[in-house]
Amino acid sequence: MTQVSDNLHPFGDDESDSLHEECGVFGVVGARDAAAVAALGLHALQHRGQEAAGIVSYDGAEFHVRRGIGHVAENFSAGDAIAELPGSVAIGHVRYSTTGGAGLRNIQPLYAELAAGGFAIAHNGNISNALHLRHELVSKGAIFQSTSDTEVIVHLVATSRYPTLLDRFVDALRLVEGAYALVCMTPKRMIACRDPLGIRPLIMGRLDNAVVFASETVALDIIGARFDREVEAGELIEVDLDGKITSHRPFGKPQARPCIFEHVYFSRPDSISGGRSIYSVRKEIGAQLALEAPADVDIVVPVPDSGVPAAIGYAQQSGLPFELGIIRSHYVGRTFIQPSDGARTSSVSRKHNANRALVEGKRIVLIDDSIVRGTTSLKIVQMMRDAGAAEVHMRIASPPTTHSCFYGVDTPERSKLLAARLQVEAMREFIQADSLAFVSIDGLYRAVGEEKRDPECLNYCDACFTGEYPTRLTDLAERTGQGELSLPIGKVA
Amino acid sequence: MTQVSDNLHPFGDDESDSLHEECGVFGVVGARDAAAVAALGLHALQHRGQEAAGIVSYDGAEFHVRRGIGHVAENFSAGDAIAELPGSVAIGHVRYSTTGGAGLRNIQPLYAELAAGGFAIAHNGNISNALHLRHELVSKGAIFQSTSDTEVIVHLVATSRYPTLLDRFVDALRLVEGAYALVCMTPKRMIACRDPLGIRPLIMGRLDNAVVFASETVALDIIGARFDREVEAGELIEVDLDGKITSHRPFGKPQARPCIFEHVYFSRPDSISGGRSIYSVRKEIGAQLALEAPADVDIVVPVPDSGVPAAIGYAQQSGLPFELGIIRSHYVGRTFIQPSDGARTSSVSRKHNANRALVEGKRIVLIDDSIVRGTTSLKIVQMMRDAGAAEVHMRIASPPTTHSCFYGVDTPERSKLLAARLQVEAMREFIQADSLAFVSIDGLYRAVGEEKRDPECLNYCDACFTGEYPTRLTDLAERTGQGELSLPIGKVA
Amino acid sequence: MTQVSDNLHPFGDDESDSLHEECGVFGVVGARDAAAVAALGLHALQHRGQEAAGIVSYDGAEFHVRRGIGHVAENFSAGDAIAELPGSVAIGHVRYSTTGGAGLRNIQPLYAELAAGGFAIAHNGNISNALHLRHELVSKGAIFQSTSDTEVIVHLVATSRYPTLLDRFVDALRLVEGAYALVCMTPKRMIACRDPLGIRPLIMGRLDNAVVFASETVALDIIGARFDREVEAGELIEVDLDGKITSHRPFGKPQARPCIFEHVYFSRPDSISGGRSIYSVRKEIGAQLALEAPADVDIVVPVPDSGVPAAIGYAQQSGLPFELGIIRSHYVGRTFIQPSDGARTSSVSRKHNANRALVEGKRIVLIDDSIVRGTTSLKIVQMMRDAGAAEVHMRIASPPTTHSCFYGVDTPERSKLLAARLQVEAMREFIQADSLAFVSIDGLYRAVGEEKRDPECLNYCDACFTGEYPTRLTDLAERTGQGELSLPIGKVA
Amino acid sequence: MTQVSDNLHPFGDDESDSLHEECGVFGVVGARDAAAVAALGLHALQHRGQEAAGIVSYDGAEFHVRRGIGHVAENFSAGDAIAELPGSVAIGHVRYSTTGGAGLRNIQPLYAELAAGGFAIAHNGNISNALHLRHELVSKGAIFQSTSDTEVIVHLVATSRYPTLLDRFVDALRLVEGAYALVCMTPKRMIACRDPLGIRPLIMGRLDNAVVFASETVALDIIGARFDREVEAGELIEVDLDGKITSHRPFGKPQARPCIFEHVYFSRPDSISGGRSIYSVRKEIGAQLALEAPADVDIVVPVPDSGVPAAIGYAQQSGLPFELGIIRSHYVGRTFIQPSDGARTSSVSRKHNANRALVEGKRIVLIDDSIVRGTTSLKIVQMMRDAGAAEVHMRIASPPTTHSCFYGVDTPERSKLLAARLQVEAMREFIQADSLAFVSIDGLYRAVGEEKRDPECLNYCDACFTGEYPTRLTDLAERTGQGELSLPIGKVA
Repeated sequence: MTQVSDNLHPFGDDESDSLHEECGVFGVVGARDAAAVAALGLHALQHRGQEAAGIVSYDGAEFHVRRGIGHVAENFSAGDAIAELPGSVAIGHVRYSTTGGAGLRNIQPLYAELAAGGFAIAHNGNISNALHLRHELVSKGAIFQSTSDTEVIVHLVATSRYPTLLDRFVDALRLVEGAYALVCMTPKRMIACRDPLGIRPLIMGRLDNAVVFASETVALDIIGARFDREVEAGELIEVDLDGKITSHRPFGKPQARPCIFEHVYFSRPDSISGGRSIYSVRKEIGAQLALEAPADVDIVVPVPDSGVPAAIGYAQQSGLPFELGIIRSHYVGRTFIQPSDGARTSSVSRKHNANRALVEGKRIVLIDDSIVRGTTSLKIVQMMRDAGAAEVHMRIASPPTTHSCFYGVDTPERSKLLAARLQVEAMREFIQADSLAFVSIDGLYRAVGEEKRDPECLNYCDACFTGEYPTRLTDLAERTGQGELSLPIGKVA
Repeated sequence: MTQVSDNLHPFGDDESDSLHEECGVFGVVGARDAAAVAALGLHALQHRGQEAAGIVSYDGAEFHVRRGIGHVAENFSAGDAIAELPGSVAIGHVRYSTTGGAGLRNIQPLYAELAAGGFAIAHNGNISNALHLRHELVSKGAIFQSTSDTEVIVHLVATSRYPTLLDRFVDALRLVEGAYALVCMTPKRMIACRDPLGIRPLIMGRLDNAVVFASETVALDIIGARFDREVEAGELIEVDLDGKITSHRPFGKPQARPCIFEHVYFSRPDSISGGRSIYSVRKEIGAQLALEAPADVDIVVPVPDSGVPAAIGYAQQSGLPFELGIIRSHYVGRTFIQPSDGARTSSVSRKHNANRALVEGKRIVLIDDSIVRGTTSLKIVQMMRDAGAAEVHMRIASPPTTHSCFYGVDTPERSKLLAARLQVEAMREFIQADSLAFVSIDGLYRAVGEEKRDPECLNYCDACFTGEYPTRLTDLAERTGQGELSLPIGKVA
Repeated sequence: MTQVSDNLHPFGDDESDSLHEECGVFGVVGARDAAAVAALGLHALQHRGQEAAGIVSYDGAEFHVRRGIGHVAENFSAGDAIAELPGSVAIGHVRYSTTGGAGLRNIQPLYAELAAGGFAIAHNGNISNALHLRHELVSKGAIFQSTSDTEVIVHLVATSRYPTLLDRFVDALRLVEGAYALVCMTPKRMIACRDPLGIRPLIMGRLDNAVVFASETVALDIIGARFDREVEAGELIEVDLDGKITSHRPFGKPQARPCIFEHVYFSRPDSISGGRSIYSVRKEIGAQLALEAPADVDIVVPVPDSGVPAAIGYAQQSGLPFELGIIRSHYVGRTFIQPSDGARTSSVSRKHNANRALVEGKRIVLIDDSIVRGTTSLKIVQMMRDAGAAEVHMRIASPPTTHSCFYGVDTPERSKLLAARLQVEAMREFIQADSLAFVSIDGLYRAVGEEKRDPECLNYCDACFTGEYPTRLTDLAERTGQGELSLPIGKVA
Repeated sequence: MTQVSDNLHPFGDDESDSLHEECGVFGVVGARDAAAVAALGLHALQHRGQEAAGIVSYDGAEFHVRRGIGHVAENFSAGDAIAELPGSVAIGHVRYSTTGGAGLRNIQPLYAELAAGGFAIAHNGNISNALHLRHELVSKGAIFQSTSDTEVIVHLVATSRYPTLLDRFVDALRLVEGAYALVCMTPKRMIACRDPLGIRPLIMGRLDNAVVFASETVALDIIGARFDREVEAGELIEVDLDGKITSHRPFGKPQARPCIFEHVYFSRPDSISGGRSIYSVRKEIGAQLALEAPADVDIVVPVPDSGVPAAIGYAQQSGLPFELGIIRSHYVGRTFIQPSDGARTSSVSRKHNANRALVEGKRIVLIDDSIVRGTTSLKIVQMMRDAGAAEVHMRIASPPTTHSCFYGVDTPERSKLLAARLQVEAMREFIQADSLAFVSIDGLYRAVGEEKRDPECLNYCDACFTGEYPTRLTDLAERTGQGELSLPIGKVA
């Protein structure tokens, strides 16, 4: 889910220099203390959204809702929190980015009392025609409670003329475009589904007799559940309260195009996606990078934590030693007041510190997952030089990020992406590295097991690297008058 | 500092299965916005104490005190917090372990108004005759505000008959035994000092014209200060408000015996202690371990995060691949309610998850920093087996921890230390590993640059591994009637 | 406004033994710092609702909303609260009764973004067909955010087919039955209106060039505004942002029937209603009571604070001395834990204490405003006897309360009203007074300036005393299957 | 108790225009749930201090302490608060005036662990040589936790050389001068005592077998206890945990001189003090005033609430009607942001509102309890004139307040007292009344049952009206160099 608004770019924080998955979802049917199970599952998905969390449970008679700003552990670890959420069915959500108390209304799962009964929904992804649909709904008298794109789905369900809730839900989905992995709950069933391209992930597992849905397999591990299968692209799975599972195919069987960036950065390395270990894919990207862009250096240094697996792969492929040249503090979260003089610090230096004794006098190659605005890379390179590194080479475990994501990843607007403005050599100059290289798009596809990127048969969404968006982007088109072509800067070859 | 009490073992938490540094200290004289500088410095020392933090500043006229439960960033990042703490002189403290709101009175720095004026003190370490002194002081009419051993020093200063504050302070220190790295503040000066053996660390740096003291060098890095030197064992450094530095030697020049466990575990890897990089010492321990206890396995797997440097050293020495077989979540902190059935989870599994795809079918050697109670090791070994590891060998980057620390490290009482009860083979059986080995005490000394442990000339406190405590332990002796000999279990050879 | 629910009586608290006005409303157009003005106005209306308060302001571009549990002063006295609410137009609301954090969504003013723009509404009263309308709206796809009856009006406006917002608003009001004094706000105007019978009060005043609306005249006094006139029954007044005032009469000119209980109890004694001072009406009720039911006693004692004006009237008419025989504590609000033995206390004794030295040995007549469940009266009589009163006579400044209110006053369900179950003599026995008398219904009408109650031409709603409800009660009828006749107990003659 | 400080006048708030009792105390021995009993007792004493409250209980093994900013009901009504305070012995305290979180340390009861065991103390009054003693104690090494004068007593007890705690306590009291009503608790007993002149009140009661101490009798009424007797001036009562009561007379039997202002203003009207009903004394003051200063008016109007009893007395004596011409709001507490224009309001108008319909065209006499700075009287007179009063006469139910209190009442410094600067006619002009009169000092003594004030045999402390302080004022003398004579303005004849 994403906040929608007429006058704001849907993706926010101008200051941040990394990409954020916007959400994680979880659902469980048929487990005693379902909310406690959901809390653990969401905790394992915390990396997908740290700003807020919510759980809705159903006890056979009533729905119970609890949402809060902050981490899952802050909101759902205590006994009284779980006691407020009785029942054997629950869905949950973690989200990135909400500001202020008012934002409470945007925390998911959303819940509404429809004519057919209670309806709760948790959404990972982004509806790319949400504003368009919202305007239509409001003009017919709908009153929105939140600025979330997800609420559009709720209103479409509420106003659909089909007789059954399932039909109304499918009717609603047919009207939306974009990316969605949804877990929904009614008094009779849980519904899990993925958009026709399966852009955002959703998997299914079993915990004894209970059925579990989650964004990633790590949420199964933490509760001791076993992996069953992925929810397929365009599939809608219905689980009734007795555990009976029915699979629906409202969109036929389209070719799936899951987000390739989940492999590069978002998913946890211990998750398994598309049958592949995320960790091994990242190591393989590092190995590809070592082949494509070797470096004549003394040590391989990861930018922690996300660059570590690729750095291990790079080191193993190149035979260079893997060393922790940058130490990361895990006590981060807030911006400190800067002393008015003397102390020189930055958000980068509060989070990362050079392992000076190691780095001094060495030629190093830094391995990072991606470059967004470039400001962090610049500071990291500078930090290595200040610590006495003789040479600082940078290798990036993804192709240049040239385009914004409109499918649920918080990217800056395109004009702020360094790779949308500069060629690689100019980027190198910007970050002041001795050399800079990105893995090639074909190298990336090789790391996920393909021979190369085949434009005739694309098996992933790689729009952030290529600009080839697999769906219509109605809101964007209406905002700019012409769609993607009118983006402020031209497409980078 | 430590809480003192007649009926409680000074080191608490029965449930925890790791060792905790109890405190970090910081001081700065002569910096504009000294409290903002102190907040950053304490943030870099957060790993030394996560439960509470405090800063006292002095603005030339008045002292300003602010303390709070929680992380430094939670209490001291905001502008209004810093605005409450004006002045160019400040000291700060982070501490481990305080329970409940009442504990607020134990948060340091302590502050008192003495006849000579205001006096603030921040303490890392533990006074081993604090109870004894406290009883004496109370019998003379002293009223204690806290249960902290540190307050004993304040009352000793208050009741000393010497004329100057500095004399009173030295007079007080002569009465205390144990470990202390202190940073104190009066209206005229800052005083930094270490106990005669220098058990706990304390370093000095410069930030432009300001003088800085801190438990570790990383606190200099974050503010852009440069390292000057260590405060020496038994040294008392006085800095007046003009920046004039005077070194005193109230205890002569005893042989220093700093805590060797700082190298093994407590200090941050990017800190430099005794002229050595903590990171490189840990790698070297790993290398020693590889020499002393090789393993016929496929991969080297660190128990994150503390086992990582030793694992890199082990891998490099042995030529085996270093792999992330365990993924650590950084969103920890609270205990979750356990679902009543179905989900099987534990504090270990919420913090660590097996990288199943990597581990499956492999023979692995796990590298961890130490074994305390052994319960965590047992769970980690089990997690690796559940993930399909063919063999699980365990190597520990420290000798067996057979004795409690009485110098400011939170260790369980001796009877709960696995190595105090069991020989290595029995420990192996307990944790269910295929093999288990610890680095030898000589190997540890080699890693810190000595040839071996020389009983005639000990340069470190290694009491936790040897039981040879370098100071008297008056409180313990009085509690047991006979001192250390009466500890519930005999000394392990 | 009232909470609506299928399975709960709309009027709640089983424990309370007094009647509560459910709300106060306020609006101002054209004042600088309108929210600060509204905060003061609401503060003067605090007696009409102590549980929660809210203000919505409009600054010419955007609406700003702030709501909170607790008193106006707790939520809206501080500068930052007012700073969040910029603009020269504001409406506000105080409400009685909300439970738990979830209730936040029920705090008014409600705010919605309609197709025509923002719409805020504050409501005093109760819609007696709210459930019926809600079911209809939900079946058409409306999604309710709250359980408040007021939200029905918002959805009716949103879904009306009329072109202009004013037409839509009138269209909505034509569908609702019951009592409402409304102050609404759109980007272009403020709208204030009263239901066709004008059951709940609403007055208009001027503050320099600004126009003010409020439930009572005391809200004008506190801001130094002057009284202009009452909003008439069935009148809808529109004030545009330039201050232009237009009066509409969508319901023609029906005979007004304002709530007579506002005079007896709800309104502040310093308010003026229908051209009469509430204080003087209450004194006159006391005088009527002295004429109708004299008492051979030594002193007249009010049950504070609400019984004071009637007691003064009773004393002046009878020539008996007025004395404070009961002292009221103003530090009330919460229920204390009862000690398990020994101390005997009650909510009555925490709020009231006998002035023992005065009462001892005296014959007294107590003057109270009404009897609801009778439990308080029983305790008060007992308290007087415990203090040594020789005789305790009770006089009530209203007729017996035999029926529930469905127009915005929180009354217990009928079966819990003492006067619905018992005749006066039995009531006397229940409260253990030496004598008991109520003012007659004709006496009450005399106190408000009429000759007597004229059934042919009723100028007030007196349903709580007579059971003659002036509107349809659709929800009640649908719930019981037959309407009022099926109430658990028969009508008391 | 009072805060002591070198550079602040001990009595603070420059803005307030009324006098404040600084504290109320309560103690109970031998009641199950003693803390719950104490909470109720303190609630009845809330008028003596609204800013903070505390309770210390003892369960036979440990002391339990809980203190908080705010009302008793906010801090001690909930079950969990009481559950934190187990035991059958408890003392409690309410205090006026503490600012900010730091003030928490000044909230009473104070608690200290002395060599002889735990010691808790609650104090109403003010030690007039507290600063002097504090400097002496600090110079000997005492460390103070608070800025409260009460802590001086604790340190004197701690450092006394007498063998038993009781002897130490008496030893301490012999060193202090000023006013104190104390309730203390040790592991063996409760101690209640009053200073030799009994300036501040303290009474004893029985609740079944439990013994109760409190500042006023109303604290007995609320818990259903019966009044036993007053603790006498200079008496020290010891109650052991079995309920055995022993009376001590460490100061012999001096002539008591209780504070006469307790009758005029501080005590609740339903309390009984010195065998007299406070209510009847106040009515009698009003009657004396009517005799001494009659007014040719239409109605008698009290300034609520404190002026009500005197107004009833004035009305009854004069035969004029008693009327509520000013209505007081009980929802006060915070200062509201002033709208930048238009609305004209003040703290007076938020608290009081003219009953305009009553007052208009009438000649009125206002009855108030005292004039402090005169600013409130000015506003009240103006409010009556704005409401149309034809004449406004003011009568004050106490003599002119010409001197500060140094015995535990929060009075402005002398230069801010209107009566210290102006004669009565000038005061009348200042408050713009048509006439002004105060009851005479002899009239006041007549109201408490004496023939007149007898300078040879003073039975009350009336220093605030006469400047004749009954004790030495060491701190004041040392601050000014010469004592009272050097007060900024001369004594008013």
